[in-house]
Amino acid sequence: MDGQPFVIPTGYARVDDRLFIHGSQASRMLRAVGKGIDVCLTVTLVDGLVLARSAFHHSMNYRSVVVFGQATVVDDGVEKLAALRALSEHMIPGRWDEVRGPSEPEMKATVVLSLPLEEVSAKVRTGPPLDDEEDYALDVWAGVIPMRLVAQPPIADPRLAAGVEVPPYASEYKRSSQ
Amino acid sequence: MDGQPFVIPTGYARVDDRLFIHGSQASRMLRAVGKGIDVCLTVTLVDGLVLARSAFHHSMNYRSVVVFGQATVVDDGVEKLAALRALSEHMIPGRWDEVRGPSEPEMKATVVLSLPLEEVSAKVRTGPPLDDEEDYALDVWAGVIPMRLVAQPPIADPRLAAGVEVPPYASEYKRSSQ
Repeated sequence: MDGQPFVIPTGYARVDDRLFIHGSQASRMLRAVGKGIDVCLTVTLVDGLVLARSAFHHSMNYRSVVVFGQATVVDDGVEKLAALRALSEHMIPGRWDEVRGPSEPEMKATVVLSLPLEEVSAKVRTGPPLDDEEDYALDVWAGVIPMRLVAQPPIADPRLAAGVEVPPYASEYKRSSQ
Repeated sequence: MDGQPFVIPTGYARVDDRLFIHGSQASRMLRAVGKGIDVCLTVTLVDGLVLARSAFHHSMNYRSVVVFGQATVVDDGVEKLAALRALSEHMIPGRWDEVRGPSEPEMKATVVLSLPLEEVSAKVRTGPPLDDEEDYALDVWAGVIPMRLVAQPPIADPRLAAGVEVPPYASEYKRSSQ
C-alpha cells in the first residue's frame, strides 16, 4: 500500500481455485487489497528444526505455499456467506451450523476477498540434514527436532450457559493439515 | 521488489535494538532487501482459537509484532559472525559451540541483514470470547482451544557417527517464547 509492504496474519479457506480471506471493513489495508493491488499470500507450516554438523547446513523442515495475484471483493450476499462458512469450516469443521449466523450489520462490517490461485508455488523440505561429506565423521549430534502445532484441552468461557457440553470438534480438535 | 510484495519465511534474532535475518547470497530478494527497500517483518504466535457464540465474534488468541523499516547488509566479518551466532542461539541455545563453524566460502555465500527496531507495533489477544450481550444465553459452547507449537522427540540422522548422544538442548527442546 503506497509502496510500503504490510503483512496481515489471517485465516483463509480454499474453494476450488480461489482463496478467501476476510476481515473488518474498517481495515484500510483490506480495503486497499480489495481495490486490486498486488498481493502475496503465504502459508508456512514448520515441521522441524534440522540440525546439521556444520552451522551452515542447519535448516528447517517445512511446507509452504506462495500465491501472487490481485484480490477482488466478494459483494454478492450468497457468495459472501458461502465464503464465510468456508473460512469457518476450514478452521473449525462443524462449528458453523451450531453458532448464530451473521446478521445484516455484521455482514456489512465484514469484507471478504477472493484471490485466484493462478500464480502459485509450493516448497517442501523433509528428512535429515545434508552435510558436507567430510563433516559426517564429526563427533556432533545431527538430526531433526520435529515440531507440531497441537491443540490443548479446551477452556470453557466462564460465562458458558449451564449444561452446555464441549463439542467433539473442540475436545478432539485436529488441524486438517496434519 | 519492483512494486510486488514478497514474503520470505525466515528465522531471526534480536540483539539490542536490531533484528538480524540471514539467507543465501544467491537470493535476489534478500539482495534487494539489503539495498534498502521498505520491508515489513512480522512474527506471529498463535495461542488459541476463540470460539464465540456468534460466527462474527470468532477470533484467535495470539501475540504478534510488526517491524517496519529498511535493512542494511552486515559486511564486517566480526559483526556478521556474531549475528550468525545470535541467529543460531535464538533458535537452538547451546548449539553453536558444538558444530563446525562457518568457513570463509560459507560466510561469503551467506547474507546477513540488520533491521533497526525503530517503527514497531505489538498486538496481543488473550482470554475468552467477547460475545454480544444477548448471545450469552444461547445454548452454544464457547471458549478457547489453546494451541501450542511443541517439539517431539528428536530423530537422529541415519548417518550419525557411532556413540554420539542426543544433547539436552535437542531432547528437551523448548521454544523460548513459551
